[in-house]
Amino acid sequence: MANVVGVAMGSISDWPTMRLTCEVLEKFGIPYEKHVISAHRMPDELQAFGRSARNKGLKVIIAGAGGAAHLPGMIAANTTLPVIGVPIKTRTLNGVDSLLSIVQMPYGAPVATVSIGDSGAKNAALLAAQILATNDQSIQNKLADFKHDQRVEAKNSEQQFD
Amino acid sequence: MANVVGVAMGSISDWPTMRLTCEVLEKFGIPYEKHVISAHRMPDELQAFGRSARNKGLKVIIAGAGGAAHLPGMIAANTTLPVIGVPIKTRTLNGVDSLLSIVQMPYGAPVATVSIGDSGAKNAALLAAQILATNDQSIQNKLADFKHDQRVEAKNSEQQFD
Amino acid sequence: MANVVGVAMGSISDWPTMRLTCEVLEKFGIPYEKHVISAHRMPDELQAFGRSARNKGLKVIIAGAGGAAHLPGMIAANTTLPVIGVPIKTRTLNGVDSLLSIVQMPYGAPVATVSIGDSGAKNAALLAAQILATNDQSIQNKLADFKHDQRVEAKNSEQQFD
Amino acid sequence: MANVVGVAMGSISDWPTMRLTCEVLEKFGIPYEKHVISAHRMPDELQAFGRSARNKGLKVIIAGAGGAAHLPGMIAANTTLPVIGVPIKTRTLNGVDSLLSIVQMPYGAPVATVSIGDSGAKNAALLAAQILATNDQSIQNKLADFKHDQRVEAKNSEQQFD
Amino acid sequence: MANVVGVAMGSISDWPTMRLTCEVLEKFGIPYEKHVISAHRMPDELQAFGRSARNKGLKVIIAGAGGAAHLPGMIAANTTLPVIGVPIKTRTLNGVDSLLSIVQMPYGAPVATVSIGDSGAKNAALLAAQILATNDQSIQNKLADFKHDQRVEAKNSEQQFD
Amino acid sequence: MANVVGVAMGSISDWPTMRLTCEVLEKFGIPYEKHVISAHRMPDELQAFGRSARNKGLKVIIAGAGGAAHLPGMIAANTTLPVIGVPIKTRTLNGVDSLLSIVQMPYGAPVATVSIGDSGAKNAALLAAQILATNDQSIQNKLADFKHDQRVEAKNSEQQFD
Amino acid sequence: MANVVGVAMGSISDWPTMRLTCEVLEKFGIPYEKHVISAHRMPDELQAFGRSARNKGLKVIIAGAGGAAHLPGMIAANTTLPVIGVPIKTRTLNGVDSLLSIVQMPYGAPVATVSIGDSGAKNAALLAAQILATNDQSIQNKLADFKHDQRVEAKNSEQQFD
Amino acid sequence: MANVVGVAMGSISDWPTMRLTCEVLEKFGIPYEKHVISAHRMPDELQAFGRSARNKGLKVIIAGAGGAAHLPGMIAANTTLPVIGVPIKTRTLNGVDSLLSIVQMPYGAPVATVSIGDSGAKNAALLAAQILATNDQSIQNKLADFKHDQRVEAKNSEQQFD
Repeated sequence: MANVVGVAMGSISDWPTMRLTCEVLEKFGIPYEKHVISAHRMPDELQAFGRSARNKGLKVIIAGAGGAAHLPGMIAANTTLPVIGVPIKTRTLNGVDSLLSIVQMPYGAPVATVSIGDSGAKNAALLAAQILATNDQSIQNKLADFKHDQRVEAKNSEQQFD
Repeated sequence: MANVVGVAMGSISDWPTMRLTCEVLEKFGIPYEKHVISAHRMPDELQAFGRSARNKGLKVIIAGAGGAAHLPGMIAANTTLPVIGVPIKTRTLNGVDSLLSIVQMPYGAPVATVSIGDSGAKNAALLAAQILATNDQSIQNKLADFKHDQRVEAKNSEQQFD
Repeated sequence: MANVVGVAMGSISDWPTMRLTCEVLEKFGIPYEKHVISAHRMPDELQAFGRSARNKGLKVIIAGAGGAAHLPGMIAANTTLPVIGVPIKTRTLNGVDSLLSIVQMPYGAPVATVSIGDSGAKNAALLAAQILATNDQSIQNKLADFKHDQRVEAKNSEQQFD
Repeated sequence: MANVVGVAMGSISDWPTMRLTCEVLEKFGIPYEKHVISAHRMPDELQAFGRSARNKGLKVIIAGAGGAAHLPGMIAANTTLPVIGVPIKTRTLNGVDSLLSIVQMPYGAPVATVSIGDSGAKNAALLAAQILATNDQSIQNKLADFKHDQRVEAKNSEQQFD
Repeated sequence: MANVVGVAMGSISDWPTMRLTCEVLEKFGIPYEKHVISAHRMPDELQAFGRSARNKGLKVIIAGAGGAAHLPGMIAANTTLPVIGVPIKTRTLNGVDSLLSIVQMPYGAPVATVSIGDSGAKNAALLAAQILATNDQSIQNKLADFKHDQRVEAKNSEQQFD
Repeated sequence: MANVVGVAMGSISDWPTMRLTCEVLEKFGIPYEKHVISAHRMPDELQAFGRSARNKGLKVIIAGAGGAAHLPGMIAANTTLPVIGVPIKTRTLNGVDSLLSIVQMPYGAPVATVSIGDSGAKNAALLAAQILATNDQSIQNKLADFKHDQRVEAKNSEQQFD
Repeated sequence: MANVVGVAMGSISDWPTMRLTCEVLEKFGIPYEKHVISAHRMPDELQAFGRSARNKGLKVIIAGAGGAAHLPGMIAANTTLPVIGVPIKTRTLNGVDSLLSIVQMPYGAPVATVSIGDSGAKNAALLAAQILATNDQSIQNKLADFKHDQRVEAKNSEQQFD
Repeated sequence: MANVVGVAMGSISDWPTMRLTCEVLEKFGIPYEKHVISAHRMPDELQAFGRSARNKGLKVIIAGAGGAAHLPGMIAANTTLPVIGVPIKTRTLNGVDSLLSIVQMPYGAPVATVSIGDSGAKNAALLAAQILATNDQSIQNKLADFKHDQRVEAKNSEQQFD
């Protein structure tokens, strides 16, 4: 089955975070491809990736980056596919820089921004699943099951009171 | 044609911002419905809206709210549809409170957050169009045209140098 | 004796903080019940909890949550009991997101917000005691004793100079 | 009927904001007294006010202050009554200074902090009503009516779409 | 004489700020060209501009942008010329977003960032002059004269005490 | 010789920081007394300390506090002696809350605020020495010597390059 | 009578704020001199001013500056007199930049920082008076009178309730 | 060959960061000198360094400092050479204070500011190389090679996915 989600990260050092995205995609059985695409060191590859994404069958792009995080926005500049941005937590500013660099996009190139760090990385995959589910009953069912399981798990967590 | 986007705002005072969302949806010919749904004053309606959204045919939800902005996240808690959050600019904190209240969602209920204020409101509609376009060639074409027009307009704007 | 305080937390991971709330309630001999109620994973339970709180005899609710912390505000939307919000410290933003998500409520659903993290968790219990004491001479006396003890302890702490 | 709420403000310049508190208290028929008590210019009066509050029959104190806003916390240091703090919006820092000075109290002297500025001032009165209602069926009924009216008003506000 | 400085701005709406850059360049007699190059609407032109800059004789690039300000960093990704970034003041966040998006670049593509808004726009031109002066005695002299004039003007400004 | 500086701290937990203040005072041979005076737990002692300070011969007061740091400002409210405020670093907000609570005083009760944490604690003692030196040739000489030593030490530190 | 306070400001544009400092000094009958001394445009004058300050009889220096506000700290580097810093409110960052640039001094060169803007400017004069009063009974009396008047004025301000 | 870059740091404690600057300069074969020059402890040396820099052959200055970071701006006040500022990460505010103190310079004395901490320290050297390369074909070639290598390395980093 062809890949429908493209996962890009600005640096291999983002992999420990973006790996969480991939794990959730796998859990939902969504075929994906993953790449290191540095906006600042690989601008050609960035542009090529954005331009070719729709034609090679991708339907959603997830891009994680930190600091002056230009990757999600610049991919959005090069495609009309929905782009989800994951602000990576940074050592100096804890990801506030990543968040503002990703979310504050001008009209014309939106980036669907999720929370900073690990929970954002996982939510990015979930959001991609939700987007795909707008036209895929199977993923839709999995999302309903997931929501149900989460609820049960949260309720049962009370047993961990000590 | 049935409405495919639901636009919700936390207060009628958000209408001057969220009107921009509606105008862009209209420009793309996307049928939508709009509602004032206050998370804090209309929790029943919020829940009913979230629960019924998929069944009545909506495919994407856009929710704008300011301050302790709980509307987008709480709708996301009640549906598996993709939810786009628009942080409304606030008088005291300029929308930083809205942004953090909307974007910092835990794993399980992502909100696709866009920029604070007017540009975010317009981008929310564009993002909804991108999501719908993953399965709609007609909107896809309009997005390509829009991107082309934006580029031409930006290039021509140099004529306004004085 | 019937429970008069309801302690809710958005996740079992908030327990190490919210346990401090419970310990102070116990110190004041205030009967309470405690629950994990995730605003985003258990919206039905949240609503049911808020709606039934007064009828089952609760007089004050304490809710702790982190990040896009919607729990305290959404409980406040579903009850007219006083709701105290505890902003849990977060890994990325140290609880600034929790604080703003909890305190910046619009007119109609106030949340009595206390400080971020451990001291806030303890103060929440104390504030609940103060509220109950407006009509309970016994708790009032305990509060006076506590204030006196705190003062003595603070004065004596000078002996720890080295 | 004796005053049950004491409204204090750090400066007469806070009156335009704190007047909103008084208006809501009046709407709920709650008898109150109001004072200018500057923590930094009237420390004796502050202390006397805090010390005598319970004895003269007050049950809740609302204190608004801006900048290095010490009034709410210092009243809390001098009474065991519940103290509600209203962070006044400031010209330089928009009330972030007021918020942090009020909310970040150490264990022992909680301040029930509400949102910055006008909505906080109104919510302070509502929170006071909620506290009094824990032992007053009449205010409880008014709060239920208010919540109902707010909901209706919010729903009807859709008629203002243009 | 060939242009040695390229001035780029992300939108024609940045012109009122970036005009100040041009005025200072003119004052120093430095030939320049100016362009609107939107990183998000004109990614091809951005890339072409960066790639060709050195060959067409430019020695320094000044780029101004606001919000998720990707223009300076993305030009830096496409050239080895020194790039000066001007953070444009924004309506919601006053340019904090612009500043962090421009300055927090990873190793490999530095952007010489100046202050937010008007003073930064003027300083960008001055910095370009300083860079050119490392190999141009005439500009060096003008810079020395400018520094002298600034000092005299500052000293004389005391006459404006009233 | 009578004590001329009073060092106050809001909690014994501030001692590891405020100890640095005392060490510098000792280095300058300035007699001082030190106290734990919690603004919120010992308001009477605070007031008594402020009121009696001048009469018992103190000339400068140094007060360190964290979070909603009211101690320096409230001492300033109770004396006309110069009060130096040390913002203690906090676990949640790193001392930003302490800084704003201390520095943003209204007209009438200034607090001479120094930097957050350890360097501020040491500088507070130095500032006290500078104030005393306005009328004490001996301390003045020590300050000149200290400045000279610091310069030499800084210059010699280059030997630590490796 | 010789000038005992030196008032410096980084730019004539700071005069509307620093004029308030001068007015309070005059009210207290404290002779002062005032200067525009730009740290960045007049570094020689800055150094000369700092070096000569004590010898010409000054006892306290007040320095106001905005943005990257180096004036107070650099004067402190050149004198052992106490230096009071006034953070001027800025157009882009409201004076947060001024505050941090002034207050965050390393050990060795403290700056006694007051609040941002107008109230800080007035408090700087008051703090100077307090410092001088450590050895001047006449100013000490005026400070006591001032404190008394402020208290009376604050108490009487209640008459302005409407 | 004469030194063309001067590297200054405000304290020997900045050396672990500024050492990275030196390593990159060495990699590019750029001769440099390095100094500890504390703005606040060595103002004379600072001034002498700035004044003599051009005459002794320096073409670019790199200055790193933390907290109230005055070194880069004060060097800029004393020379017309381009000055690059490196904001050192601080323990309390993570370098936000350093960043604002360095970047927010008024018109007349620009500082080319790079990112906070390690990546900024390395980028400062790269920026210096870019400035020198405007008139040095050999460095220009090295920069092109470096950019090529960075791109290859980034592309190859995908092999580290596990």
